[in-house]
Amino acid sequence: MGQYVAPIRDMQFLLHEFLNVSEELKQMPKFEDVDADIINQVLEEGAKFTQDVLFPLNHSGDREGCSFDAATKSVTTPKGFKEAYKAYVDGGWAALACDPEYGGQGLPIVLNNSFYEMLNSSNQAWSMYPGLSHGAYECLLEHGTDEQKKTYLPKLVSGEWTGTMCLTEAHCGTDLGLLRTKAIPQDDGSWSITGSKIFISAGEHDMSANILHLVLARVPDAPEGSKGISLFLVPKFLPNADGTVGERNGIACGAIEEKMGIHGNSTCQMNLDNAKGWIIGQPNKGLNAMFVFMNAARLGVGMQSLGLTEVAYQNALVYAKDRLQMRSLSGPKAPDKPADPIIVHPDVRRMLLTAKAYAEGARAFSSYVALQIDRELNHPDEQVRKDAADEVALLTPVIKAFITDNAWIATSEAMQVYGGHGYIAEWGMEQYVRDARINMIYEGTNTVQSLDLLGRKILMDNGAKLRKFGEKIKAFVEENGTDEALSEFITPLGELGDKVTKMTMEIGMKAFTNQDEVGAAAVPYLRVVGHLVYSYFFAQMAKIALAKTEAAEAKGDNFYKAKLATARFYFARLYPETAMLIRQARSGSGNLMALDADLF
Amino acid sequence: MGQYVAPIRDMQFLLHEFLNVSEELKQMPKFEDVDADIINQVLEEGAKFTQDVLFPLNHSGDREGCSFDAATKSVTTPKGFKEAYKAYVDGGWAALACDPEYGGQGLPIVLNNSFYEMLNSSNQAWSMYPGLSHGAYECLLEHGTDEQKKTYLPKLVSGEWTGTMCLTEAHCGTDLGLLRTKAIPQDDGSWSITGSKIFISAGEHDMSANILHLVLARVPDAPEGSKGISLFLVPKFLPNADGTVGERNGIACGAIEEKMGIHGNSTCQMNLDNAKGWIIGQPNKGLNAMFVFMNAARLGVGMQSLGLTEVAYQNALVYAKDRLQMRSLSGPKAPDKPADPIIVHPDVRRMLLTAKAYAEGARAFSSYVALQIDRELNHPDEQVRKDAADEVALLTPVIKAFITDNAWIATSEAMQVYGGHGYIAEWGMEQYVRDARINMIYEGTNTVQSLDLLGRKILMDNGAKLRKFGEKIKAFVEENGTDEALSEFITPLGELGDKVTKMTMEIGMKAFTNQDEVGAAAVPYLRVVGHLVYSYFFAQMAKIALAKTEAAEAKGDNFYKAKLATARFYFARLYPETAMLIRQARSGSGNLMALDADLF
Repeated sequence: MGQYVAPIRDMQFLLHEFLNVSEELKQMPKFEDVDADIINQVLEEGAKFTQDVLFPLNHSGDREGCSFDAATKSVTTPKGFKEAYKAYVDGGWAALACDPEYGGQGLPIVLNNSFYEMLNSSNQAWSMYPGLSHGAYECLLEHGTDEQKKTYLPKLVSGEWTGTMCLTEAHCGTDLGLLRTKAIPQDDGSWSITGSKIFISAGEHDMSANILHLVLARVPDAPEGSKGISLFLVPKFLPNADGTVGERNGIACGAIEEKMGIHGNSTCQMNLDNAKGWIIGQPNKGLNAMFVFMNAARLGVGMQSLGLTEVAYQNALVYAKDRLQMRSLSGPKAPDKPADPIIVHPDVRRMLLTAKAYAEGARAFSSYVALQIDRELNHPDEQVRKDAADEVALLTPVIKAFITDNAWIATSEAMQVYGGHGYIAEWGMEQYVRDARINMIYEGTNTVQSLDLLGRKILMDNGAKLRKFGEKIKAFVEENGTDEALSEFITPLGELGDKVTKMTMEIGMKAFTNQDEVGAAAVPYLRVVGHLVYSYFFAQMAKIALAKTEAAEAKGDNFYKAKLATARFYFARLYPETAMLIRQARSGSGNLMALDADLF
Repeated sequence: MGQYVAPIRDMQFLLHEFLNVSEELKQMPKFEDVDADIINQVLEEGAKFTQDVLFPLNHSGDREGCSFDAATKSVTTPKGFKEAYKAYVDGGWAALACDPEYGGQGLPIVLNNSFYEMLNSSNQAWSMYPGLSHGAYECLLEHGTDEQKKTYLPKLVSGEWTGTMCLTEAHCGTDLGLLRTKAIPQDDGSWSITGSKIFISAGEHDMSANILHLVLARVPDAPEGSKGISLFLVPKFLPNADGTVGERNGIACGAIEEKMGIHGNSTCQMNLDNAKGWIIGQPNKGLNAMFVFMNAARLGVGMQSLGLTEVAYQNALVYAKDRLQMRSLSGPKAPDKPADPIIVHPDVRRMLLTAKAYAEGARAFSSYVALQIDRELNHPDEQVRKDAADEVALLTPVIKAFITDNAWIATSEAMQVYGGHGYIAEWGMEQYVRDARINMIYEGTNTVQSLDLLGRKILMDNGAKLRKFGEKIKAFVEENGTDEALSEFITPLGELGDKVTKMTMEIGMKAFTNQDEVGAAAVPYLRVVGHLVYSYFFAQMAKIALAKTEAAEAKGDNFYKAKLATARFYFARLYPETAMLIRQARSGSGNLMALDADLF
């Protein structure tokens, strides 16, 4: 059932040549020992684990799905998932980017990020179980009490226990201010929590001894809306003092959903009936604490879609080289065969290169942001931390929405390469498309991401964060603008930067008099910013590749040659989307708001 | 499970106000009695049948799917499908657009077309069974012998028997020239046919007493490639002289496929083992005859995607008016409720209007082409027939590819309106997306359609057909170019017409020296032509609406107001895609062909 080979060479190119991570990490005391050898070793071991253990379970997990037993309220994951999770825990993979104080390996997020791409290429549904645990880990690490950390973090770090985030209720997803789950304080300092949650990924399963639910609820007399939400830790089993699991808590799965994809992951309705919980952080400040989890999750969703883009591309490429159909319009290319392999056809190449360019762009983008997170959390210089934090805040919604929208396009193109076979389950391509679709929805729909970017991250600080990032681009354009060999990359990058500046000011002005202008522009606006980021990174990668390609080709290494071709394809075929997007973003709210709802 | 209400008002607007079909049909002796009353009556009865009988089986049919019994080689369709088919036959629906000589009702294709939209909105998987039969009917009607027609057509027209098209083999889909199924002539004038076919929609099922397979195969000593293909009629049961079914023939289903969608339709592997068949038309001319079927099928696939676009839009609209989530950024719109209905949010409207505009554009486009087919087949004036035939040839690949690509976009946007609920099977939205995906693949992938348009239909006659269609547009632009109220529609239409002309010449010139330029441009080129067509039709519809809206609004009828708003949305938000597409189409083959296949 298909194939997956982790793209280690491209990851190494990004980490070592594009980002110079070893040098960067040396500036952070926590990572001063993390050198290129360690990084390469983790990449290689990660490749083996994901290729050999997880990928073979991807298709079977989709066909089998999870099953729910109403009598025991238990969920059985697809065959092999449990054993793979044990191998993951035994291999220490859960601890990779965790704090050594709690048993972690203390490696940087930029490396964990590459590993997560591999996890998701090989099996998105499976990878959500440990992925959500890691989000719970980060949230507790930042907002938990010392006792909470002592009790729970070692279990999450080892992977013995897993975690979830319980936000959504049937009547509220985006609008968490409407939630109704209630928490009543108890004499022992704990809380008694009652309510119903839906869409809880990995809410119940058979892979770990305990599940720690992070639950949003209202305390008595909480203010209405999103300012009256608190966050609670609600374990499936109450922990004993010795770290073993004790009494069953009043939280249980009531049903699992039938979904379009990610069938191997259990999407649970969770019922809380006087469940015992402990508050995380302050009452009514739960959303703040949850945002730590949600920001991590949003980056994680971007990685899911990068993973799917890569694996769909790889399989489409194998098929395109193998499948014989028609002759090239410019004359037979394999005259000894009954027809040419379909990779000779320009449009098959367009589909393949679309997926390839979106994979390589997303890999550069997410690696860059992951390193910025490491700097935000660990750099000794406060200004560096602050600047990095601003960039991470600005780019998180772009990672989430741009990469997931692109993966929808790319997996669909990869499936199309297969013709009719792409639609048949057996070939595995249609699963990538179905799995990719959820990533545009959960952890905040892509519309919500676009409003976060334009409304909150850009207009609320009068464009300061965007300007700071734009100055980096400007400096790069000025530095390389006179290099003729680079002009094919630098010119469109510079032009797009100018257009983004003008468009942002224009929308900002319109928003003064009508806030609907923000909502009307946000989605195409975010994609323009995404293209600005990709133009910037493809131009930088092209610069490196140009400098190295001649020497490398002489040694038979065509990596840089291919990178240049991908960058050229990006500017010729994908970047032109900005011409459409800018027109759409600037077209205003009138064309959307003209009709009364009744006249639709 | 959702809702479907046939859009009769919009259909009537198109048939009576936009196309003036009653006047047009009066010019064709065959249809001189078909007046507006008959048309409206068929639309209303069709709406009842599809809404009440077929739509309730759509979701259940998807969940249940077809099942195959290997022992009896039989396929069981989902619960209710068989009974619905009986109701369809009893209601005379199969005969709607068939020749009265064979029991048909002799109604025009332009009306059948509206009925097919309803069929597909209510249940695409079910509608494929009679849809393929109708294609077989058209093929036999044009190419069958008198005896074949006498034996088989009445059965197809009544719907007692159904039909299929058996083209694809495991190693060849697009490239039919590679096919291996063999036909050996027998002494009695029949042929003995042996081979294996795959992806045969409706190849085996339990809905009709007999199935007539139209099978492509090679006769002995046939030339290689597509010039050596012949077409055969191979019934599942050999017919007795009295019209009953006789002996079982040597063609049987070997397995059915598990697919991404259209689960209610059986996609069969068909094995022919010395099956008895009769040649249709001349030996080695089978592809010509089959093209009658395939052209009908390509229009049919466009209608499938129009149907899905409409029903997905309708359901998203209901949800958007009902679901309360967040407040409008420009101030609360439903202050008495806990939140505003999500239709207040500009981006939700963008998603809805995208689906609405693509549905209305496709409905206008397909109705127009369907009427052209009626004129092509039935107009007394030879020149009118010839002109109509040219337009149908030109626009068929655009119908197939543009409408199906747009439905992929539109059903996905409609699903996105539901947020997380869109991904859950129970809500029915994700089925529309999965069903829509096949339409971009079968009956010639959308890449094949684009090559047919640009390579065959346009460049092979030096743009003559395109020019003729372009003259119509030019005349309309000139006629209305001075009307200021229309300039918002006419100006972009005129501009796009000029750009298409220039782009076509440019690509044609490049293709002289390198045929790969055709393949490199074709897919974005087709979408530009699609937008030219939609711009033309939206401008015409806007003109009618502008003239009528004031009087209608005074009577409380807001149909024309809504039509104008949709046209404005189209030009503001969808038409700008041409800015991207033209850049892509003009970017040439270099960015695609630069890399050796090994360097991908």
